[in-house]
Amino acid sequence: MTPHTLVAPPSAAPSSSPQGGAPGSRDAVALRRAYDQVRAQTELLCDPLVTEDFVVSSMPDVSPTKWHLAHTSWFFETFVLTPHLRQYQPLNAKYAFLFNSYYVQAGERHCRAQRGLVTRPTVQEVFAYRAWVDDAMRFLMDTLASDPAHEVWSLVEIGLHHEQQHQELLVADIKHVFFTNPMRPAYLTSALAPAGVAEQGWQRIEEGVHEIGHDGNGFHFDNEAPRHRTYVAAADLAHRLVTNAEYAEFIADGGYHSAPLWLSAGFATVNDLQWTAPLYWERVADSWHEFTMAGLHPLDPNAPVTHLSHYEADAYARWAGARLPTEPEWEVASRLHPVAGRFVDSGILHPSANAGSGPQQFFGDVWQWTQSAYLPYPGYKPAGGALGEYNGKFMSDQWILRGASCATPASHARHTYRNFFPSDARWQFTGIRLARNV
Amino acid sequence: MTPHTLVAPPSAAPSSSPQGGAPGSRDAVALRRAYDQVRAQTELLCDPLVTEDFVVSSMPDVSPTKWHLAHTSWFFETFVLTPHLRQYQPLNAKYAFLFNSYYVQAGERHCRAQRGLVTRPTVQEVFAYRAWVDDAMRFLMDTLASDPAHEVWSLVEIGLHHEQQHQELLVADIKHVFFTNPMRPAYLTSALAPAGVAEQGWQRIEEGVHEIGHDGNGFHFDNEAPRHRTYVAAADLAHRLVTNAEYAEFIADGGYHSAPLWLSAGFATVNDLQWTAPLYWERVADSWHEFTMAGLHPLDPNAPVTHLSHYEADAYARWAGARLPTEPEWEVASRLHPVAGRFVDSGILHPSANAGSGPQQFFGDVWQWTQSAYLPYPGYKPAGGALGEYNGKFMSDQWILRGASCATPASHARHTYRNFFPSDARWQFTGIRLARNV
Amino acid sequence: MTPHTLVAPPSAAPSSSPQGGAPGSRDAVALRRAYDQVRAQTELLCDPLVTEDFVVSSMPDVSPTKWHLAHTSWFFETFVLTPHLRQYQPLNAKYAFLFNSYYVQAGERHCRAQRGLVTRPTVQEVFAYRAWVDDAMRFLMDTLASDPAHEVWSLVEIGLHHEQQHQELLVADIKHVFFTNPMRPAYLTSALAPAGVAEQGWQRIEEGVHEIGHDGNGFHFDNEAPRHRTYVAAADLAHRLVTNAEYAEFIADGGYHSAPLWLSAGFATVNDLQWTAPLYWERVADSWHEFTMAGLHPLDPNAPVTHLSHYEADAYARWAGARLPTEPEWEVASRLHPVAGRFVDSGILHPSANAGSGPQQFFGDVWQWTQSAYLPYPGYKPAGGALGEYNGKFMSDQWILRGASCATPASHARHTYRNFFPSDARWQFTGIRLARNV
Amino acid sequence: MTPHTLVAPPSAAPSSSPQGGAPGSRDAVALRRAYDQVRAQTELLCDPLVTEDFVVSSMPDVSPTKWHLAHTSWFFETFVLTPHLRQYQPLNAKYAFLFNSYYVQAGERHCRAQRGLVTRPTVQEVFAYRAWVDDAMRFLMDTLASDPAHEVWSLVEIGLHHEQQHQELLVADIKHVFFTNPMRPAYLTSALAPAGVAEQGWQRIEEGVHEIGHDGNGFHFDNEAPRHRTYVAAADLAHRLVTNAEYAEFIADGGYHSAPLWLSAGFATVNDLQWTAPLYWERVADSWHEFTMAGLHPLDPNAPVTHLSHYEADAYARWAGARLPTEPEWEVASRLHPVAGRFVDSGILHPSANAGSGPQQFFGDVWQWTQSAYLPYPGYKPAGGALGEYNGKFMSDQWILRGASCATPASHARHTYRNFFPSDARWQFTGIRLARNV
Repeated sequence: MTPHTLVAPPSAAPSSSPQGGAPGSRDAVALRRAYDQVRAQTELLCDPLVTEDFVVSSMPDVSPTKWHLAHTSWFFETFVLTPHLRQYQPLNAKYAFLFNSYYVQAGERHCRAQRGLVTRPTVQEVFAYRAWVDDAMRFLMDTLASDPAHEVWSLVEIGLHHEQQHQELLVADIKHVFFTNPMRPAYLTSALAPAGVAEQGWQRIEEGVHEIGHDGNGFHFDNEAPRHRTYVAAADLAHRLVTNAEYAEFIADGGYHSAPLWLSAGFATVNDLQWTAPLYWERVADSWHEFTMAGLHPLDPNAPVTHLSHYEADAYARWAGARLPTEPEWEVASRLHPVAGRFVDSGILHPSANAGSGPQQFFGDVWQWTQSAYLPYPGYKPAGGALGEYNGKFMSDQWILRGASCATPASHARHTYRNFFPSDARWQFTGIRLARNV
Repeated sequence: MTPHTLVAPPSAAPSSSPQGGAPGSRDAVALRRAYDQVRAQTELLCDPLVTEDFVVSSMPDVSPTKWHLAHTSWFFETFVLTPHLRQYQPLNAKYAFLFNSYYVQAGERHCRAQRGLVTRPTVQEVFAYRAWVDDAMRFLMDTLASDPAHEVWSLVEIGLHHEQQHQELLVADIKHVFFTNPMRPAYLTSALAPAGVAEQGWQRIEEGVHEIGHDGNGFHFDNEAPRHRTYVAAADLAHRLVTNAEYAEFIADGGYHSAPLWLSAGFATVNDLQWTAPLYWERVADSWHEFTMAGLHPLDPNAPVTHLSHYEADAYARWAGARLPTEPEWEVASRLHPVAGRFVDSGILHPSANAGSGPQQFFGDVWQWTQSAYLPYPGYKPAGGALGEYNGKFMSDQWILRGASCATPASHARHTYRNFFPSDARWQFTGIRLARNV
Repeated sequence: MTPHTLVAPPSAAPSSSPQGGAPGSRDAVALRRAYDQVRAQTELLCDPLVTEDFVVSSMPDVSPTKWHLAHTSWFFETFVLTPHLRQYQPLNAKYAFLFNSYYVQAGERHCRAQRGLVTRPTVQEVFAYRAWVDDAMRFLMDTLASDPAHEVWSLVEIGLHHEQQHQELLVADIKHVFFTNPMRPAYLTSALAPAGVAEQGWQRIEEGVHEIGHDGNGFHFDNEAPRHRTYVAAADLAHRLVTNAEYAEFIADGGYHSAPLWLSAGFATVNDLQWTAPLYWERVADSWHEFTMAGLHPLDPNAPVTHLSHYEADAYARWAGARLPTEPEWEVASRLHPVAGRFVDSGILHPSANAGSGPQQFFGDVWQWTQSAYLPYPGYKPAGGALGEYNGKFMSDQWILRGASCATPASHARHTYRNFFPSDARWQFTGIRLARNV
Repeated sequence: MTPHTLVAPPSAAPSSSPQGGAPGSRDAVALRRAYDQVRAQTELLCDPLVTEDFVVSSMPDVSPTKWHLAHTSWFFETFVLTPHLRQYQPLNAKYAFLFNSYYVQAGERHCRAQRGLVTRPTVQEVFAYRAWVDDAMRFLMDTLASDPAHEVWSLVEIGLHHEQQHQELLVADIKHVFFTNPMRPAYLTSALAPAGVAEQGWQRIEEGVHEIGHDGNGFHFDNEAPRHRTYVAAADLAHRLVTNAEYAEFIADGGYHSAPLWLSAGFATVNDLQWTAPLYWERVADSWHEFTMAGLHPLDPNAPVTHLSHYEADAYARWAGARLPTEPEWEVASRLHPVAGRFVDSGILHPSANAGSGPQQFFGDVWQWTQSAYLPYPGYKPAGGALGEYNGKFMSDQWILRGASCATPASHARHTYRNFFPSDARWQFTGIRLARNV
């Protein structure tokens, strides 16, 4: 998500507290453990990188890995340590300026466009900064272990979800950095297993007033609330995601040159940016290849198509005689299925087909574009303070994506999660589940 | 609307045929009369102009008056005369290229950005083109008078609604052309009457499943259909529009400098374009003035604020502790009130306050921004052919506006009309009706 | 020239005063007569135009004809009437703002980019403005007829040369306006006579210290002075200009695709702007045509090539195994030949070949790019006041052109005239005379 | 120089061969030793850097240090090893693509704008590439030690001068990279010694025909030849450079806001880019400071002003009642003085005042803007092949600078050296020597 929402309303309970209300002692213990796990996972994702890889930003949407590492630490420093740990001293006073992303109330920020130009602090210094923050965080959490109702714990929880968002961004960003490099380095060495693919089928959504949105039990971002009623007409949702082979047919059929299939702004973008295929697809010796986390490989026909914009998803759906699902349709359909899949924690980092039958691939392959704009739910109330200052400030000109991708941490995915990107974003792991009217 | 949707589905009846189905003979007669009226009204709007005024485009959104005059004639030529009047000869073969707006299937088009650079055909030649088309149209309509079911009649009806849309654009465009000119010419000479203002009050919308959208009886654009069910939570809508005086308080309170009030993209726009007030507001000797169709005048405190973007409407609503209405809320609330107001046909061309009490100002003052994105209704089906080729192609990154403005022709306004513009559009007569949760 | 230099040093005599010093009575009479002639000639050039043609600016370099008409009048109003005619009242106080070009000391100016958006004053009002200024100028000149040494006379002379510069700009600008219009109007109705062409020959320039620059006798712009010594190595200058046929060979030989022929910035421009031929050349049915003042015609093979940039002239010369002349070489060579040719006053407005032999075509066909940058002559001294404020302010990143074109008024051409444009300017009547080392 | 000329004509002798003609055996020995020295010096300049510093490009003119290191090696690989060492194998086939700058005939090139986005090859790999090339070069030079007339030696010489140019660029580039970083790292740790300043005085240049340009004895770039005659009027050149204190007076006098002092394009640039002082100057607590290679320091009033554009140098000179020198004036004046100063080899890297009297500071402080455009000398002949393909291709819209700066290697400076940059370049060590007419 660029950028992302971050705040749970004051009443929100951590996810380990399914009954809601004040988190019990089990939660403080779990969060203390989660802190170590999440922080370690971020650094684990950096294992394949050399120092130089941490520094650059290959396009405006991409932040340097170094910045992700520091910004997620700055978040704990600014919202947890500074207000709640009296003796805390920032490691370097300039970091507050360098590593704030867009929190106006948290002070001045370094210009986003220059993030990729900053060679110091060094990568080593950034890791030292992480350690500095971690030491203070651990000390603070240990101190408060016996006070599981302390507000610090909900801030820790937010901070961990925030860091998980940046884990996903980090993976997508480093993929783009590697793709931009004519040397085409690989992040993973393992080969990708070829996959089967299920016959397409359709899941019926029943007409009527449904409830969607988060019910307040467990962690969620504020844009997922409140749970509310919405009318949904009967519709069918596809059992599985659109595959590379299916998308290649659209290309072969002249899809990128047929104006009637596209939104007006979409066709203008296709022509301006000379798009002829999803990001990362390349013709090699007359056959489609795809740049993956493991380097350039022949396209897996059965894998879900990914790295395409809303414009392309929408045009494909029209070509296929279908449409994208609405946000409520997706949530209603997905609730019947568990939050399971191959997430970034598995280290695989590539969507891949599932030979099973029936509805599948809701989580862990690719984010799924909807035809719903990113708008506030009825009764949405932004929280106060710097953390919540701008909860809804990105609610214009963006589309909702649902599900979770192979770059999402497993514990970060849920049925009510509202991801959002503008029409032309392609560098995230995004794909297509079709829908149709009944 | 930039650009606009244009097509009624094949089953759509002209507005004079409330029962739907094939239009009766009364309709043909009415359309024949409407043709003369609408075409004459377009030319009447040009009365205050000199030749030079017809030529220029003062910004990319603005088309030259000359182009509006010709394009609306091209529409009848292309979609009615060429296919249905065998002997018809275009007056000039190049006009088809020059005056097509964006209909890809209707052939190549002249670049929009160059519309304001074309000095020939002259204004006189464009009027001659109108007369040429009118003569052929009248001949054709007379011929078909006895065949009221002929498909030409529904094309005529679409063409007239299309021309009415351009009447509104023409007025907004010429206002901008005059504003751009340091000589600051006036379009109207009449002074504006000062106006009273009603106390603000609130109309309750009841919670429940409501039906919105056009029922198919009478003319409508395809984006207004189908009529469909939608769930609406209980809400209050303001009785009247936000006034200039109220908006000036927002400015005086530092509204344009307070980031937390704005969408992120909105605050960026405010800073990039250095907005400090609505378009057309100016400080003169320490007091606010407004450039109107009658020239620069001191701001009327009671008149509805107008010429502001969605960003500004949204920020104002947040400042006022309220929000913009949703599209269904607005339609439900407005249905209790008649489509009445001061339209462009009255020659007044300025929103003005109404001293009455109770819900008011739905039509004839300013278009009212909603918080609903412009998206297809469930079950929306675009029509076929060049006319319908791209009915939904503008359904991205735009907001719905409801109602009608003082620049809208009276017979063009209706409860289900869906106008749409992007977040930063300000040159139309746009304003604010507040809403709030219950 | 965009923009142009304007000022004669205080000591400069009008051209009718070959002896220099204060102009004699003959000069006042001549200037009084010249005033009527020059002002009438400007209006004569507008004869082929309709009202709409006066309004637009088809690209940033092009000013509307209406603006040329008004600006040249503003010049007399500002620099002659206001300071020297006590009772003079401006016709409209806003014109001073609208029609100032770039004289900072003469007050605020209207933004150049918006010149083409101003519909009022109307064309008729601009002609009335000219008449208003003319009446006052005539009255003032009559009053001063008996005082030929009055400084007003030298201001009149400057104003007339200034107006002649705008005559040339007006012609080039209207040509571009007509070219931009898909209707492709013609300015002249007369057909162009086919022409012969002379064998190419070479004129030898002798090695040594030469004097160039204006000697101060007669009118000149300040950038032509002072006359000064310069060392010139022996060189040959071509007898005649490069023809369309010769330039077409360069194109046919792949000239526009051969990087080694071009300056680095030139080849980048060729690729960015997708140049494949001079401005106004078009392929029609596999043969080159040229848009001329008389419309689109098959290319005259013998006419001098025109409407090309310095980049193209330089690349052509390299391809031809030659180079462009330096400014001193051109002046030394041209001094042997009279200032004669077909100028705008003749009404022909098209360069055409001369079948004579020997050095020719110095004046009245096309401006000739040199390889000299536009820099101050040694000892150059800008004059004071608003008129002279910025005499040298355009002396960066421009090239000298010498001679005069078919769009230049005959009395405006002279051996020492320094015209200048940036590397990529093509809308003036510009061409190529080759030179080579000995 | 961006970019630079590179080629000596075939007859050019290495600088150790003052008599010209084929280099003697002493030259081969000297070049063999120079190779080690120059290559080592480049790496010495990188000593203060950490890995991250090598990667980024802080603006379009700036190349990453890593790229400089690789490109200078690519130069030897491409122009020496590949054609002359039969067994040579490139270390990596993709490097030829990545590290070509602009030699079209040497093959495809990586887009300059993306240089700063390439994280691999790593810095360590680039140093390994240098070692690989050095090993091959040393082997080849040893082999040819007994054949001092072999053409490889002149290619080696060019390659070393090329590398010295990149040493200077590297220093200026890294300064900008450090300046862009809010952490403001320092390259040098040593403090700067305060300096005295000499009274200003004037050196007379005698009127007459002078010879300038390189005489062909010793190494030179092709744009320095041929030596040729030029006429110079009598003039005075300032004894020393303009100081920071003097330039601060210009600022305090409103120099940056006074349009009449500036070239038109210069004043537009000042306003567009909001320049108020030279690059690297900052107000700290109401006094001027300067970002230097040793970090931010209070401005040394006596040091030569540096990091200003031609626009600023030109405006300052006008304000001071003087002008910039012409290229011939500078060369004639400088020839009386030795090529001596504080160069990059000294490790000081900051211009500093010299308390001596008489003409000084020609070399080793700052490059000195002239008022001469960068144009070919009469009789200039570009060499053939890829190396010489584009020798003159930068001869448009650039100004000549003369002398040498503190970032220039000592053995790279000479009286005839023609450096060039466009009007707005500021990141090099550029400054002002005044001139005036007699």
